[in-house]
Amino acid sequence: MGRDLSALFDPISVAVVGASDDPAKYGHAIAAQAIRANGRRPVHLVNRRGGTVLGRTAAPSLRAIGEPVDLAVVSVPAAGFEAAVEEALDCGARAIVAITAGFAETGAAGRARQRTVAERVRAAGAVMVGPNCLGLADNTTDLFLASDTFTPGGVALLSQSGNLALELQLRFRPHGLGFSRFVSLGNQADVTLVDLLADCARHEGTRAIAVYAEDFADGRAFAEAASVAGKPVVLLTAGRGDASARSAQSHTGALTTSADIVAAACRDAGVELVATPRELSVVLASLAGGRRAAGRRVAVLTDGGGHGVIAADAVEAAGLAVPELEPPTRRRVREALWEQSAVGNPVDLAGMGEQDPGSYAETVAALLAAEETDAVLMTGYFGGYAAAQDGLGGGGATLAEGEQEAARLIAAHHRATAKPLVVQSMYPHSPSCRTLVSAGIPVFGATEDAARALAATAPTAYDIGLTPLPRAAGPLRETGYLETRRALEAAGLPFPAAREVRDEAELLAATREFAGPYVLKALHLLHKSDAGGVALGLADPDELLAVFREMNARLGAPSYSVEAMADLSDGVELIVGVDRDPRFGPVAMVGLGGVLAEPLRDVTFTLAPVPADRALRLLRDLRTAALLDGVRGRPAVDVTAAARAIETVTAFAAAHPEIAELEVNPLLVRPTGVLALDSRAVLA
Amino acid sequence: MGRDLSALFDPISVAVVGASDDPAKYGHAIAAQAIRANGRRPVHLVNRRGGTVLGRTAAPSLRAIGEPVDLAVVSVPAAGFEAAVEEALDCGARAIVAITAGFAETGAAGRARQRTVAERVRAAGAVMVGPNCLGLADNTTDLFLASDTFTPGGVALLSQSGNLALELQLRFRPHGLGFSRFVSLGNQADVTLVDLLADCARHEGTRAIAVYAEDFADGRAFAEAASVAGKPVVLLTAGRGDASARSAQSHTGALTTSADIVAAACRDAGVELVATPRELSVVLASLAGGRRAAGRRVAVLTDGGGHGVIAADAVEAAGLAVPELEPPTRRRVREALWEQSAVGNPVDLAGMGEQDPGSYAETVAALLAAEETDAVLMTGYFGGYAAAQDGLGGGGATLAEGEQEAARLIAAHHRATAKPLVVQSMYPHSPSCRTLVSAGIPVFGATEDAARALAATAPTAYDIGLTPLPRAAGPLRETGYLETRRALEAAGLPFPAAREVRDEAELLAATREFAGPYVLKALHLLHKSDAGGVALGLADPDELLAVFREMNARLGAPSYSVEAMADLSDGVELIVGVDRDPRFGPVAMVGLGGVLAEPLRDVTFTLAPVPADRALRLLRDLRTAALLDGVRGRPAVDVTAAARAIETVTAFAAAHPEIAELEVNPLLVRPTGVLALDSRAVLA
Repeated sequence: MGRDLSALFDPISVAVVGASDDPAKYGHAIAAQAIRANGRRPVHLVNRRGGTVLGRTAAPSLRAIGEPVDLAVVSVPAAGFEAAVEEALDCGARAIVAITAGFAETGAAGRARQRTVAERVRAAGAVMVGPNCLGLADNTTDLFLASDTFTPGGVALLSQSGNLALELQLRFRPHGLGFSRFVSLGNQADVTLVDLLADCARHEGTRAIAVYAEDFADGRAFAEAASVAGKPVVLLTAGRGDASARSAQSHTGALTTSADIVAAACRDAGVELVATPRELSVVLASLAGGRRAAGRRVAVLTDGGGHGVIAADAVEAAGLAVPELEPPTRRRVREALWEQSAVGNPVDLAGMGEQDPGSYAETVAALLAAEETDAVLMTGYFGGYAAAQDGLGGGGATLAEGEQEAARLIAAHHRATAKPLVVQSMYPHSPSCRTLVSAGIPVFGATEDAARALAATAPTAYDIGLTPLPRAAGPLRETGYLETRRALEAAGLPFPAAREVRDEAELLAATREFAGPYVLKALHLLHKSDAGGVALGLADPDELLAVFREMNARLGAPSYSVEAMADLSDGVELIVGVDRDPRFGPVAMVGLGGVLAEPLRDVTFTLAPVPADRALRLLRDLRTAALLDGVRGRPAVDVTAAARAIETVTAFAAAHPEIAELEVNPLLVRPTGVLALDSRAVLA
Repeated sequence: MGRDLSALFDPISVAVVGASDDPAKYGHAIAAQAIRANGRRPVHLVNRRGGTVLGRTAAPSLRAIGEPVDLAVVSVPAAGFEAAVEEALDCGARAIVAITAGFAETGAAGRARQRTVAERVRAAGAVMVGPNCLGLADNTTDLFLASDTFTPGGVALLSQSGNLALELQLRFRPHGLGFSRFVSLGNQADVTLVDLLADCARHEGTRAIAVYAEDFADGRAFAEAASVAGKPVVLLTAGRGDASARSAQSHTGALTTSADIVAAACRDAGVELVATPRELSVVLASLAGGRRAAGRRVAVLTDGGGHGVIAADAVEAAGLAVPELEPPTRRRVREALWEQSAVGNPVDLAGMGEQDPGSYAETVAALLAAEETDAVLMTGYFGGYAAAQDGLGGGGATLAEGEQEAARLIAAHHRATAKPLVVQSMYPHSPSCRTLVSAGIPVFGATEDAARALAATAPTAYDIGLTPLPRAAGPLRETGYLETRRALEAAGLPFPAAREVRDEAELLAATREFAGPYVLKALHLLHKSDAGGVALGLADPDELLAVFREMNARLGAPSYSVEAMADLSDGVELIVGVDRDPRFGPVAMVGLGGVLAEPLRDVTFTLAPVPADRALRLLRDLRTAALLDGVRGRPAVDVTAAARAIETVTAFAAAHPEIAELEVNPLLVRPTGVLALDSRAVLA
């Protein structure tokens, strides 16, 4: 269910501790915001010198207010922080917004201090945002406890950076986007990103959730909360590159999670991952409207010039398709247009828009109605006739009026369908485009933004939810080669026949149980391959014995494994590994194994356990997926069995938290079935 | 030297044929523009009804003007086009700007008509732009023969689309960018993109050349002209995707060149290839200033929040590096900042900018001066203090003044260095940012734009110029297996020993000349591998003879090639092919060959001939380049020899225009040297 954050977002009363008349102090800005909304609840200002602040009488202490305080904003110097929190809890506060800085971000001592405060807050049954945060705001409850005003709207913004929130605020405006809530995450000593995400998922006034986070704390919980949020979650994060990882490490001492893993978790959880504030705004402008495309097929129309082909390229570059239109659609579009117009995809009005702006609307309607399209992109000059009035475009009053009428008609056609329509215009701020934006149609100035916005509405092949972490009956106690092999075999992973042997007699006994060729592996060595402790393709018992003698003389291993050598000729070798990420828990790596693993690095990551249907999609998305279908006359291999084996291995590892690393490499996938040829595990 | 286009860009006199008072006609818009600049040269308006146009007396015909006309704009209905051109040539016109449409774009008949006109124009020693164009403008000679006004500046725009030119015009403004020239390319019946590019390269008033083209006509000549332009050439083109290729084909019937080849030609010629109008503007905002970075190392500074790490990620994603700063730089930056600031890379002022905006300037100066950086990116809030005056940001008059002073200091530091400095600001239109833009510092609102702009200034590893097409002494007359092999061997490409044999006696004679294992290939078959006409690894003469008998019975080929089988164990198999593109001439494909060629598709394209140093870089940039260095204990292969072989093969193909396709696959690269194991050629 998540924590009850009602006192945080809709308190009965508020007090700002550290309210000030000094504009250089944050307590000034926050107090000025807080008193804007005095109607819904009492707002008290507290300044230890008393007197007046912002023209109101300030209480010298929380206690001096003389009535219970439900939420206390604490913006005092670090030395007085604990005392202020204690006093707030004494006065009945169920929520603390801790602005004060100087804790975990300064080092170990600060971390310990904030941990103690957080424990105290939780013991009192209260919740605390921060410390080291910039406050919060809830436009749906008239709660303004941050230094900035946020335009009301449907986006909840949870941010680790104040300046970025400000940039997003600026970028949202032209799209008619606003904020339901803003929360500055601060150090997340008590209330975490995950708590806030879960609460915003339940919050009626929030239609989409935007997150800027550099540190995920419990990344697995974040992914799980996002996957069940039931509304779009868009994540802006940094740390993809070398420099920002270096920077994050030096600032927080945090173990950074690789960008690959963050991207994999987002894909698995259905979180839209973005790299910049602009991309975040573009994606939200599209998703906040709530429309999702049923597929990836886009119809493009333009009024002329190169915009159509450039947009078609951008749409395809964003991973969508621009298929040919079916004859019925072509006929309907043709009726709306003139001879010069091209009715392919892209549709090119070729000047018809200038003659009759209504032709835009007709064409949009036909394309939205077409069965072969999932979404529509309109691109080019539209908006320019009306923009002429602003001195920007060309066209007279008649054309401008026609264009405005076209915008109204387009808006009506848009209302009549559930398909996404996105517009790129050279004049995104023109009156005609403002008409579209008011109707909930996203309008962008840049072609690539329009394409990105459409891509965000498209379904992904990975939309199958997260699998909960399984729990094994008991832990794996030993991770020797044979123990790991046996445990995986018991879990259902097939291996070739094998026998552990300690001497020549046992070796020869083994050869009577299965035929060659054989593999011989020395056991209880750290890196058996590197040490020359693996011999492949030993044709018969004689060759096996000779190699055994040589290896035993050289290595003197306590025991060896004699195995039936698998026929590699028609197989593809995969690698399946599971590591434990400190943030995201068990994370699987799946890819091409064997000799090509290193030079090709064709691997992909995903949260473990991996259900077979997700495994299948991951294999199909490998760069070298064509190898699985057989090349140059080789037969296709059993990808379904490979996917099942990936499920087995990753579920096993995920169920055993005591395993730090598990790897099956190579996992030989043959035309029928799979065989695990080698495996290893490392305990945490 | 290129064609003399002086009459086009600086005519002695101008006449607009088809000038009109009807605002719906293009002849109205163009006449209105033409008479704006009446000072430098006579401008005559011609309307067959005479009377007045735009308040001036219009001549009823060109002849009626009574004096020579140097440049004639022809904007008449298609039916009267040829007559108007004839009359213009009769009146001494050395240049025609042909607005009239209805020629090649309408089909074969139109193509023939415009070809005839173009021949007539050339025969008269004149030049013609168009037909089906929107005119041209030259701000450096006060020549305005297009319907729009273009802000003066240093960019020459050569465009196949009018609407795109308009969008670029709008996008250029905030960057302080303007146009030296604008030419609407039209159908390029006489004057081509290449002629115009060469002329703009010579044009003093042009600092950078922007091209929007969907069809390159002579792409090789375009690449050659761009590579010697001596100023930045930026190409916006469409047709990367399936839909736009389909659209281009249906519109023009043109053979489309694959996007891979266009990209390769641009890389080879040093042309900056962009995908959207926005990207074109971003790149030009950066390149028009003329600064180039000496390397790819960028220092990033921010005033706080997440902007630094997000920018660092964006810079790395753009292919640049954000290395750690050296101790001397860190010390100098530390002196300018306070304790909370982070002096890594990114440098984070952490609020110091608010306390002392001059600290921005100090830090920028230190980073520009650092030996370990090639360029600097400043990102975040800068501009916000002064923007407060516009009601956008926060800050008082003092902070705003400080920021303006910082902007002036940054401009001064920028003047004192040749390194690129690029700024991302949440307030790109603020007074402080306008100060930066006026000083020639590019400012962008979006982080990814700033990163892209910096990437455009960085050197590429391919900056080695184009190699002229060589000419062979004589053509290759036959392209049978042995003829091709012999010709390549003569050109210097090593092959294994081989003998052509027709019967068993010749076969056995061959085995006495070189030892096994052998390869046997049936000759004069179209697809010898598919037909089972190739046998590898024949250990000795007996096995060779047996296989020969079987193959000969089955295929009955007129002759066979017996070859020494190369040792493949330590080698890497490459593929080298040369095809003839109708636009770009001989184009080479280089990549991983053998069995992996198909599933991995790890190939790259480049204009042939390929000098060895470019070949080396291409090999190093393959995704699987690690294979060349040896993996899992295998030795590195002789990449230098491979590069030389690529030079040999591609120079041979380029010198033989009669060869439509040439392929060497596999080209075996061994620890020492290379061997071509198979080759084939197809005549055009």
